[in-house]
Amino acid sequence: MPTWTLSCSSCDYTQPGDARAGVCPKCGQPLLARYAPVAPWTTSQRWDLWRYESVLPLMEGETLVSLGEGLTPLVEAPGLARRIGVRRLWIKDEAQNPTGSFKARGMSVAVTRARALGATGVVIPTAGNAGAAIAAYGAAAGLPVRVYAPRTTPAPILSIIRSLGADLHLVDGHIGDAGKLSRAFAAESDFFELSTLREPYRVEGMKTMGYELAEQLGGRLPDALVYPTGGGEGTVGIWKAFGEMRDWGWLPNDVRFPQMIVAQATGCAPIVRAFEAHEDRATPWENPATHAAGIRVPGPLGDRLLLRLIGESGGSAAAVDEDAIREHTKTLAESTGVDAAPEGGAALAVTRLLVDQGRLSRDAEVVVFNTGSGASYRVDT
Amino acid sequence: MPTWTLSCSSCDYTQPGDARAGVCPKCGQPLLARYAPVAPWTTSQRWDLWRYESVLPLMEGETLVSLGEGLTPLVEAPGLARRIGVRRLWIKDEAQNPTGSFKARGMSVAVTRARALGATGVVIPTAGNAGAAIAAYGAAAGLPVRVYAPRTTPAPILSIIRSLGADLHLVDGHIGDAGKLSRAFAAESDFFELSTLREPYRVEGMKTMGYELAEQLGGRLPDALVYPTGGGEGTVGIWKAFGEMRDWGWLPNDVRFPQMIVAQATGCAPIVRAFEAHEDRATPWENPATHAAGIRVPGPLGDRLLLRLIGESGGSAAAVDEDAIREHTKTLAESTGVDAAPEGGAALAVTRLLVDQGRLSRDAEVVVFNTGSGASYRVDT
Repeated sequence: MPTWTLSCSSCDYTQPGDARAGVCPKCGQPLLARYAPVAPWTTSQRWDLWRYESVLPLMEGETLVSLGEGLTPLVEAPGLARRIGVRRLWIKDEAQNPTGSFKARGMSVAVTRARALGATGVVIPTAGNAGAAIAAYGAAAGLPVRVYAPRTTPAPILSIIRSLGADLHLVDGHIGDAGKLSRAFAAESDFFELSTLREPYRVEGMKTMGYELAEQLGGRLPDALVYPTGGGEGTVGIWKAFGEMRDWGWLPNDVRFPQMIVAQATGCAPIVRAFEAHEDRATPWENPATHAAGIRVPGPLGDRLLLRLIGESGGSAAAVDEDAIREHTKTLAESTGVDAAPEGGAALAVTRLLVDQGRLSRDAEVVVFNTGSGASYRVDT
Repeated sequence: MPTWTLSCSSCDYTQPGDARAGVCPKCGQPLLARYAPVAPWTTSQRWDLWRYESVLPLMEGETLVSLGEGLTPLVEAPGLARRIGVRRLWIKDEAQNPTGSFKARGMSVAVTRARALGATGVVIPTAGNAGAAIAAYGAAAGLPVRVYAPRTTPAPILSIIRSLGADLHLVDGHIGDAGKLSRAFAAESDFFELSTLREPYRVEGMKTMGYELAEQLGGRLPDALVYPTGGGEGTVGIWKAFGEMRDWGWLPNDVRFPQMIVAQATGCAPIVRAFEAHEDRATPWENPATHAAGIRVPGPLGDRLLLRLIGESGGSAAAVDEDAIREHTKTLAESTGVDAAPEGGAALAVTRLLVDQGRLSRDAEVVVFNTGSGASYRVDT
């Protein structure tokens, strides 16, 4: 079993890993788990992300809450690589998780810790898929779940949340508005708030995508990694994993980390705007609007972490409009067989844009993330 | 690489494994692949069903068509076991496949073989999920896909089929009516017809569920296995796997095979009717009707195979009504966190019915299959 402390991602605050934690009590920025050094690359035989339990926050005697999350496929798409104009291209298909999105990873770990720490319930604001995931893991853990979601959340996602027995509250506004209600409810109840980066464990689940990539590519890493980014926990988690693997000697000495590329929509692009202005933090986006619901996050708490990792990796950030997202969602689905979500389409569109602009090498090997299932978005018949 | 022949499941016909094959040309019954004996239990490191490639129909130099199918979780549900009244209960959650159902398994193998044999396209009739799966694997293989589906197929499934670029034809009637159109089109084109049990390779993909169960349970098998059964390829495939593992010495000598339990809906229960009448074949169900679309199959070609394996396993067949299916779909979702499809609800309802009737021991360890995702069925908002 690993041991860990919780360190602020921005200041020098640190606390033991076994106590309940939210954001940094000194500066309000996200806390991240820091582990004692662990033995070289060890995995269990499990067919889920707990395969990497030697680097996950689980203590002796605790029961984990798992529904088979993780170990998603890395689908190579040579036809799409030719079309986009890069050397190799893979789709990491996160649709094949419980409730159809990458959000399952974070919730498996965060709900495991919440239950271990005695939570009587869990609550979040969501732009969509995280609400479905927390409903599933809450049900699996036997914990009541409350979800605040924008009224504009895709209907199939709202339907999953309801069908799993969660208490769903629709909000007029965006995830930021939902967040205020969620935090107010948490303050007056015993429910743990598991909002993105407002507690340190969802990121721990997310980081397993980084471990999986290294394992699936035989210890190599791609040249670039394109992630549709809203709250940022996926991107932050993967970058954290690369750092851990490097620090612990799990990667070849000459490994080069990928350029981390943040994909957003022109209707909600706070990280892109800050990146282009060379800022180290983002200002909230006014009137956020995109049909790629998962990236409609106007003021992510992870803004500084995101901007920092883009810089450290020599990466980039770019936004594409609604038509480009639609077109590339269709291209992704029809040319690979992956049931692409709009967020996956946005990531593919950004990949093409950067290649066309000469910001991403035509010699690059690129991993594009499809973070959810197309089925969770479509309401046409 | 394994070698195999194709043998009729009913008469003495046999043919080489490397030629194109449909049903038995002598008697019209399904052909099944029979392998030369293979070495003891070997698996590859792949994170999909091709992990069992030593017992799958792939020849030297062939490229497989894969989207990460299989290796689905076996979720233990102690609360549900208590509620149903059995010793242990697991959900095998097939929703975590490409396009959200177990149908991905069969299509990965069948489309791999169809492409290797030079198909210019693939066509099927479907009750729902198989259409989504063939659309995905056809896109992955670069083959045109034509699908005939009842107009009553759940809208989210039709939407997946369309989004993956397949040529979808809606049919007034049930899958039997769609089948006539599909076969007529195949007869006048170069498209391969990949209808359930009308070619031998979808079952090969399905059998991997049996291998996975044995691996996940450490070489043991459960006492009973409850499968929502329409065309029968899942049930037939799993039973075939158990026989292969026994014949090849992959299982402990004292292993007891599970009772195979076929779950159907009272609105379409041809196998249950034949089982209760002690027949060795079924007559087509008149006016089939159930909201669990995947088991709305009035005249499955696999009827004899199903009735035979129920008998050989000391199993059973039972049907439940629409209210029971709805109630148990809800119970399954809320008590486990699995996004249950109506077919999974039907299987759970049949499990409870058989326990209540004393036909399934309260001491039993039971695996219940959730064959698809609930998200593929819900259209409410």
